[in-house]
Amino acid sequence: MQHLAARMAEISAFHVMDILARARELERQGRDIVHMEIGEPDFPTALPIVEAGMASLREGRTHYTPALGLPELRAAIASAYDGMARPDPERVVVTPGASGALMLVFGVLINPGDEVLMADPGYPCNRHFVRLFEGRARLVPTGAETSYQLTAALVRQYWTPRTRAVLVSSPSNPAGTVVPDAELASIVATVRELGGTLIVDEIYHGLIYGDPVRSVLAHASDVFVVNSFSKYYGMTGWRIGWLVAPDTYVEAIDRLAQNIFLAASTPGQHAAIAALRPDVRSELERRRAEFEARRDYLLAALRGLGFEIPVIPSGAFYLYANCRAFTQDSDRFARDLLEQAGVAITPGLDFGVNAPAQHVRFSYTTTRARLEEGVRRIAGFLARSQP
Amino acid sequence: MQHLAARMAEISAFHVMDILARARELERQGRDIVHMEIGEPDFPTALPIVEAGMASLREGRTHYTPALGLPELRAAIASAYDGMARPDPERVVVTPGASGALMLVFGVLINPGDEVLMADPGYPCNRHFVRLFEGRARLVPTGAETSYQLTAALVRQYWTPRTRAVLVSSPSNPAGTVVPDAELASIVATVRELGGTLIVDEIYHGLIYGDPVRSVLAHASDVFVVNSFSKYYGMTGWRIGWLVAPDTYVEAIDRLAQNIFLAASTPGQHAAIAALRPDVRSELERRRAEFEARRDYLLAALRGLGFEIPVIPSGAFYLYANCRAFTQDSDRFARDLLEQAGVAITPGLDFGVNAPAQHVRFSYTTTRARLEEGVRRIAGFLARSQP
Repeated sequence: MQHLAARMAEISAFHVMDILARARELERQGRDIVHMEIGEPDFPTALPIVEAGMASLREGRTHYTPALGLPELRAAIASAYDGMARPDPERVVVTPGASGALMLVFGVLINPGDEVLMADPGYPCNRHFVRLFEGRARLVPTGAETSYQLTAALVRQYWTPRTRAVLVSSPSNPAGTVVPDAELASIVATVRELGGTLIVDEIYHGLIYGDPVRSVLAHASDVFVVNSFSKYYGMTGWRIGWLVAPDTYVEAIDRLAQNIFLAASTPGQHAAIAALRPDVRSELERRRAEFEARRDYLLAALRGLGFEIPVIPSGAFYLYANCRAFTQDSDRFARDLLEQAGVAITPGLDFGVNAPAQHVRFSYTTTRARLEEGVRRIAGFLARSQP
Repeated sequence: MQHLAARMAEISAFHVMDILARARELERQGRDIVHMEIGEPDFPTALPIVEAGMASLREGRTHYTPALGLPELRAAIASAYDGMARPDPERVVVTPGASGALMLVFGVLINPGDEVLMADPGYPCNRHFVRLFEGRARLVPTGAETSYQLTAALVRQYWTPRTRAVLVSSPSNPAGTVVPDAELASIVATVRELGGTLIVDEIYHGLIYGDPVRSVLAHASDVFVVNSFSKYYGMTGWRIGWLVAPDTYVEAIDRLAQNIFLAASTPGQHAAIAALRPDVRSELERRRAEFEARRDYLLAALRGLGFEIPVIPSGAFYLYANCRAFTQDSDRFARDLLEQAGVAITPGLDFGVNAPAQHVRFSYTTTRARLEEGVRRIAGFLARSQP
């Protein structure tokens, strides 16, 4: 006899985990699988960062830190923002991954029944975090015409009396697209006018290809910014993220963080300080350039095969492709591609209810050689499966 | 203009943080402070554990683990339970500290308005976690007659139609007391009969002085057990805990953990595997013996000064003392003791609403020499402040 909280009916597993589990099973059977489903950099953490983590351990730094994080790390994070965007270090909160930052934001903001606007397609955890606190994610269908992003006009259009907050992810997962600076300023103004709170997920902010993009903090200090050492800094397993909060919220966030986390991992925080050092930058930039080269290759290759990718993704490490030329059931398509061709990709299902059956996500978190092998296999699969 | 979620009105900061902050301020001014307020072992993590963490980093193990944790760690945790209590490793979930385990348990169990019974005095985060998910902690006043613990009779007495779960902490914070084995079996049967779920916080389970105590898992598999590498294993800053869940809940817990954590810290998980190695045991046991010697000293010394500690605490590293011989305002008492005598302790305020003004908590998380210095200072303070 099992009683599950009602929220659990609406908090679903990542479908990609089924794909990943099946891929691992096939690998155990001796099959070779090209992984284009994984949302994690293939690079291990850069050596100077690892060495800083090891050094902190050697020095016996194994106790709790303050709930808001090591003051030295908070200051270093603040200093990593340019000019106008630079926040007071007191507004920077170190968290157990960006997951922890999202937990704090929604925990201090959302009452039962409150709505949060977010783009569909979008990262699945975001809507589940809102549900966790008895709020409702209001998914706004977005397409190529807005680069799969919210706009000020969409915010206004979907706003209801229950809307409490708006979440923008830029660059986004799964589309890898960025909200243009002027549009972001317009969203800031619109949310402010409507009396809500803007949350901007800048988790992929370091991984931008082409013109640099400014943090929303260049436009406003009354917004929440979520970020992480996972993606650009390549520190996924360390679980260190951060939040920049409006100053009036810091006290409540400290209170909540004390109670639900105590603090983020101490070795991770020490390593993260090193991740922000100028001498580490060149290695991180080398990796960024490698991701950019992979994007350029894969974008052209997939378009060449007939996948529709109408907007060039200018960040993250994903391509979100319309696959209607091949299927009306992207979940089946992804499963068949894995079984028959040994290529793992993510079905649209994970990213919302806006035409998921016609979309799949490709991650370029594997080497150029493996991407080329994956593309060869996909080409063969498509040739075999087409009438 | 700031909108805080209603829950934040009932999620309070730890009052001890004010004491700690003031203590640090006095230290910066050159004062010497004896810290008896801190709920964290003074020992750094034992060397073989630190070395295992460093080795995993050297080997480049910096990526995400599965959401439920490294299979090797889950198996090692399961094997650490004796005989009847040993769970299937599939029921073991690795979490970001015991905090993460509590989050998962209450997240999958609690609907808005559901009640959870727990002892007062108790660890403040427990009631705040319940509030986080819109539930209500129903605090059951407990005293020396039940060793500050719930009993089956109290569970039955305080049960209401809204009661969904019962939380037992054994050994407890702040009292350091243990629920006797037969009483625990009786609580298991009572909660089962009443149709609720039992959660047992065994965070301090390794730190037991005197007769060994069995995990509740020796009595039941339909209970949740929360534990941690922080206290006995001395790994506070690494933020690794675990949960043993009834098998029917594991799927939902996996789903929730994927969404709200992704996974616990990878270096921490590798270090935790080492913490369970037989060769590390002797150092951990040496530390346990040191805590026991401190308890013996401090218990006798505080009783000698006139603090009432009616039950000998058989675990953790706390003494919960009635201070009514000296004050009717334990918060003021703690502040005066800090300012005038340089000794930091925790006022009862943090632990609930059951006579907090007549209680304080002493932690013996500092050396014997410092505890002796603290006792000397307290004696002087009491002599000066008594008429």
